[in-house]
Amino acid sequence: MEEYLARIAPADEVAMRAAAERQGQLTKPPGALGVLEDLSVRVAGMTGVCPPDVPMPAVVTVFAADHGVHAQGVSPWPQEVTAGMLANFAAGGAAVNAFAANNRVDVRVVDVGVATPVEELDIVHAKVRPGTRDLSVEAALTNDEVRAAIAVGFDLADTLVKDGYRCLLTGDMGIANTTASAALIATFTGSTAAVVTGRGTGIDDATLAHKTAIVQSALAKHAVPASDPLGALQAYGGLEHAALAGYILGGAANRVPVILDGVIAGAAALVAQALQPHSIEYCVAGHRSAEPGHAVALKTLGLTPLVDLDLRLGEGTGAVLAYPILACAVRALGEMATFESAGIDS
Amino acid sequence: MEEYLARIAPADEVAMRAAAERQGQLTKPPGALGVLEDLSVRVAGMTGVCPPDVPMPAVVTVFAADHGVHAQGVSPWPQEVTAGMLANFAAGGAAVNAFAANNRVDVRVVDVGVATPVEELDIVHAKVRPGTRDLSVEAALTNDEVRAAIAVGFDLADTLVKDGYRCLLTGDMGIANTTASAALIATFTGSTAAVVTGRGTGIDDATLAHKTAIVQSALAKHAVPASDPLGALQAYGGLEHAALAGYILGGAANRVPVILDGVIAGAAALVAQALQPHSIEYCVAGHRSAEPGHAVALKTLGLTPLVDLDLRLGEGTGAVLAYPILACAVRALGEMATFESAGIDS
Repeated sequence: MEEYLARIAPADEVAMRAAAERQGQLTKPPGALGVLEDLSVRVAGMTGVCPPDVPMPAVVTVFAADHGVHAQGVSPWPQEVTAGMLANFAAGGAAVNAFAANNRVDVRVVDVGVATPVEELDIVHAKVRPGTRDLSVEAALTNDEVRAAIAVGFDLADTLVKDGYRCLLTGDMGIANTTASAALIATFTGSTAAVVTGRGTGIDDATLAHKTAIVQSALAKHAVPASDPLGALQAYGGLEHAALAGYILGGAANRVPVILDGVIAGAAALVAQALQPHSIEYCVAGHRSAEPGHAVALKTLGLTPLVDLDLRLGEGTGAVLAYPILACAVRALGEMATFESAGIDS
Repeated sequence: MEEYLARIAPADEVAMRAAAERQGQLTKPPGALGVLEDLSVRVAGMTGVCPPDVPMPAVVTVFAADHGVHAQGVSPWPQEVTAGMLANFAAGGAAVNAFAANNRVDVRVVDVGVATPVEELDIVHAKVRPGTRDLSVEAALTNDEVRAAIAVGFDLADTLVKDGYRCLLTGDMGIANTTASAALIATFTGSTAAVVTGRGTGIDDATLAHKTAIVQSALAKHAVPASDPLGALQAYGGLEHAALAGYILGGAANRVPVILDGVIAGAAALVAQALQPHSIEYCVAGHRSAEPGHAVALKTLGLTPLVDLDLRLGEGTGAVLAYPILACAVRALGEMATFESAGIDS
């Protein structure tokens, strides 16, 4: 763990200054590309190069796991849907597959803790344990399990960058994972359960009240301070959150942009931020989820989402939707003519 | 003109109902794809097919023209920049080229009224006249010129669809064209000049006040009612607005989605709406421009933008950024498994 964190350096200020200066010379009025100008400057800082290469190829990694708290009735979906959706991802039938095919993003699926056996699927098998323990009753994970799951994400990021990927997108799948996300977000942002707990895949008012009470009671029971990110993962899980935190740290260690999906990724990024604040300099918020905790998480992360289209699916769909915007921002910086090169007298 | 308008039919309600029903069967919680679900339903209505084919290939057409009102000092840029940017588009050095290359959108550039001679450029030459007359002094165009420019856009849309394109994106280039846009938007929305006049490519407070006064005085001088779209184009221009209105109508007549760029396209779409209201059923708002008149135009058009990233460049950049979102929405509808086909018990 300490070795991972030591590999993460701050964004490169020299490359960022060069990128900001180059933006002012391109054939457009200053600032006319809005948010995309800052985005291109940030990517220069991440990669340490100006202008940076287009961040491609890109890969979205869907970390999947189950949650013991499912037993408390926090989701209308059976736990087996997690495994069912893994088969769907492997067969190419999910929303993330459709989006990724369109946007030229490869899809990796990782079992980091699915309760149902899925050995037969052609995915990455890295199960730490078959689902977390019930966070409303006991600690969801042991310290060793947390470290093992973080290592899954970190090592995969290393492997993917070694394989040539230059942009890592986060994805997730796990019935009941918005419950663990709410507990993590409350821990790191100081918000109450009521503010950060949402309807997830769609629950009624009574179930939302029940889910909020479970989060509130778990927060009181475990009482983990924001300064203890490993303790928070131990208390609440999930295994996919831990793996995602490792994946985010791994992207930062390899100096490639990481596009965060929705509320699950936001919770994991808060863990990464607590472990090594510079890691967030490598993160781009893909979209704003309809889940209320997500906006709260983004505020603490200091990130502004690129798209805001009421998605609340997870899987990495919001990150994949945002990827072309990031790529366009970088291409504009690298490929546009300057007023001088175009011979335009401005 | 009457022939064009007669070719435009309302969106297909049967295909839209089938698409909405199919959305409910896909492997995701109902509504979890947010705005993209409605978007896919709209494309089914446009094309009359469920599920619709992915709207590809796509092309962005940059209609370029100059404006006589430039003489009044409404822009800090020399008029020759329009022609300079055409050369930049032709050489592939502009922002729209970088975005289009990334998002697999072809670029067409059309001279529909540039003041400077540009015969040497490898673009579509369809100059109706070299710039409009000064709208602050006289009518910008004659009725014949308006009809000729609309025909350029409509005929090009026909040709592009005949050539295989299945999604038409709007683009524009013309120094001072936000002035004509403000006058058009005020005409069709009933807003005052102060509400719809903005800083365009970037002007100071004094120039903004001057530009607003020019728009206000032109509105009082020409006093065209919203019921007279051809009269409004005659009074204010521009040639690119007229061509864009024709292009939008042509997309609708050919039942392909038209992605609108920013404020210039919004002004042109208001003209198309006044000529044939069903044409807007084929339009998707690509983005929300930072120019204040754009939000006003979108409200009257009844369209919600897909991205909102403070762009204020034109060229079609906002439309090209939004194109992958439209394509993803359609792919999800057509390519995702249903719960039944995936064997998931929901």
